Amino acid sequence: MSTKIKAYGAQDSKADLKEMTIERRDLNSNDVKIDILYCGVCHSDIHTVRNDWGNAKYPSVPGHEIIGKVVEVGSDVSNFKEGDLVGVGCMVDSCLSCSACEEDLEQFCEEGMVGTYNGKDKHLGGHTYGGYSTSVTVREHFVLKVPTNLDTKAVAPLLCAGITTFSPLNHWKIKKGDKVGVVGLGGLGHMGIKFAAAMGAETIMITTSPEKAEDAKRLGADGVLISKDEDAMKEHRGSFDFILNTVPVKHDVNPYLQLLKRDSTMVMVGAIEPLEPMNGGNIIIGRKSIAGSLIGGIKETQEMLDFCGENDIVCDVEMINMDEINTAFDRVTDGDVKYRFVIDMQSLKN
Amino acid sequence: MSTKIKAYGAQDSKADLKEMTIERRDLNSNDVKIDILYCGVCHSDIHTVRNDWGNAKYPSVPGHEIIGKVVEVGSDVSNFKEGDLVGVGCMVDSCLSCSACEEDLEQFCEEGMVGTYNGKDKHLGGHTYGGYSTSVTVREHFVLKVPTNLDTKAVAPLLCAGITTFSPLNHWKIKKGDKVGVVGLGGLGHMGIKFAAAMGAETIMITTSPEKAEDAKRLGADGVLISKDEDAMKEHRGSFDFILNTVPVKHDVNPYLQLLKRDSTMVMVGAIEPLEPMNGGNIIIGRKSIAGSLIGGIKETQEMLDFCGENDIVCDVEMINMDEINTAFDRVTDGDVKYRFVIDMQSLKN
Repeated sequence: MSTKIKAYGAQDSKADLKEMTIERRDLNSNDVKIDILYCGVCHSDIHTVRNDWGNAKYPSVPGHEIIGKVVEVGSDVSNFKEGDLVGVGCMVDSCLSCSACEEDLEQFCEEGMVGTYNGKDKHLGGHTYGGYSTSVTVREHFVLKVPTNLDTKAVAPLLCAGITTFSPLNHWKIKKGDKVGVVGLGGLGHMGIKFAAAMGAETIMITTSPEKAEDAKRLGADGVLISKDEDAMKEHRGSFDFILNTVPVKHDVNPYLQLLKRDSTMVMVGAIEPLEPMNGGNIIIGRKSIAGSLIGGIKETQEMLDFCGENDIVCDVEMINMDEINTAFDRVTDGDVKYRFVIDMQSLKN
Repeated sequence: MSTKIKAYGAQDSKADLKEMTIERRDLNSNDVKIDILYCGVCHSDIHTVRNDWGNAKYPSVPGHEIIGKVVEVGSDVSNFKEGDLVGVGCMVDSCLSCSACEEDLEQFCEEGMVGTYNGKDKHLGGHTYGGYSTSVTVREHFVLKVPTNLDTKAVAPLLCAGITTFSPLNHWKIKKGDKVGVVGLGGLGHMGIKFAAAMGAETIMITTSPEKAEDAKRLGADGVLISKDEDAMKEHRGSFDFILNTVPVKHDVNPYLQLLKRDSTMVMVGAIEPLEPMNGGNIIIGRKSIAGSLIGGIKETQEMLDFCGENDIVCDVEMINMDEINTAFDRVTDGDVKYRFVIDMQSLKN
């Protein structure tokens, strides 16, 4: 019924991550078994392992930016075969029959999607274990095809940081000539810049940190707006067609709302927590909107990967070995990474 | 160049409103001169007279829910003639050439629209005086045709309370079968219920006050949701296609955001001030939006009046004489009116 494999996880919220053994189910007819090559390190991994959101299950094996090779497929699997380069993102299952799933928005499944880690394991019981491991077995519908023309290890973070930023730009139909602001330059923000620029938008990095300007331009930004510079903020007032706000913590959204054109939208993808008080006048004047967006559905995630293949887009990554993960967590917390750590999973296998 | 007429206004922020004399410009070629029959009492009138927003100009003569008869038209006026029943709302001028004006959204004129009162008077200098007066002269473009099949005095508040609630329901394309929530039952909320119901929506009054249930149903609500009833709020969670939030003061929007369906919007029309902290998670989960809306453009205001004529919609009003205005202001502040005071302007003339 199951096989024991190597993984890396934490036994409780205070513990460092260490090597451990977990079980993976044997292949069902609609499953794909994947040998993991790389796994990105997402801030959510840290929040979960440290139980910042109060819902962590232990042992906790995080990781939802998975790239690997197919090693076996179930008898009903038609889209994948042994040897295929594939990806797994934040979800490994959903009901596939509710209105959200039928609209290809499995992330909003009305029965609740199954997270790649810390979700409810329908097969073995208990909870799901993520990609900080040598292997994973996933229902075909939730497996993505990875373009082979890209630097494979730098593709991994596309499965979360990539789709999280691509989806709102795609859903709100960003097009050539639009003026798009990206607030915050981290794992999400650096992908927001790359995507907005690739879609032809005039892409402006909006940041509190002048020292990030050079890097933002290297990533594709046409300009940089320092949000502490009141004159510059005034100059750009009412000029943005869209703002992608990637700031992951509580902050004041009012200055950004004032940057929007009439009838335009700022989309939040980072801060899943209470914001500073928003002034109703900042949306009433100009009929503006503030909206949210959560990763993306499987169909859109595949579109994002295909878009990356066509436009040569990957993440900026720093590679680590599995046993460097605890230091990497601390560095992510300190904002000391450009822009995403990726674990070389060979380092766990050998 | 100008004529002296009777009006009612305040000399400073502490003063009661009293009879006074103001000047109205003589007719320009594109002007319509209106003999005022009725004027609604909007909460903004009180905020302005009492300088709550810090921008009041004195003497302050408020009133932007004006109904009257055309008594004279300029030589270039083609849409109105003597004797026509007309209305004037919150605006009396704008540039008519910016992108907002060209899209019939004069309320967002990039040069700033001219408010019916407390705006910059381009003709006589100083500031504009509103409808608490016997007569007003207004640029043709900003004069509305009033359906003659309605109770005329009850039409007056449509010019502000009506368009403020009609516009978001119209812009967000509310249609038969949609489940629409209206938060707050005051001057705006009672019109929100009437419009949403007339558009065929399943209309739910959302209120903290159980005693408002009966009245809400009389106004057209299909149901009432008491926002303090946690069980009821849970039952309705994720079920609304649209929420119109008319609460005019700082409040917590989070419980209402949780009522919205995926990809749905709550529109704020009342609270032009900082709200309680919104939790980003409440819009990220379900890709929801919170937006704002400000009155409506002239074209849409005419559409609203025509819709009211076709659907027999007017406001619920309580008539007062001009010299009762100070008591009326206090009663509005106390929420003691169902649902709008309207001044019979004959009481100022005689």
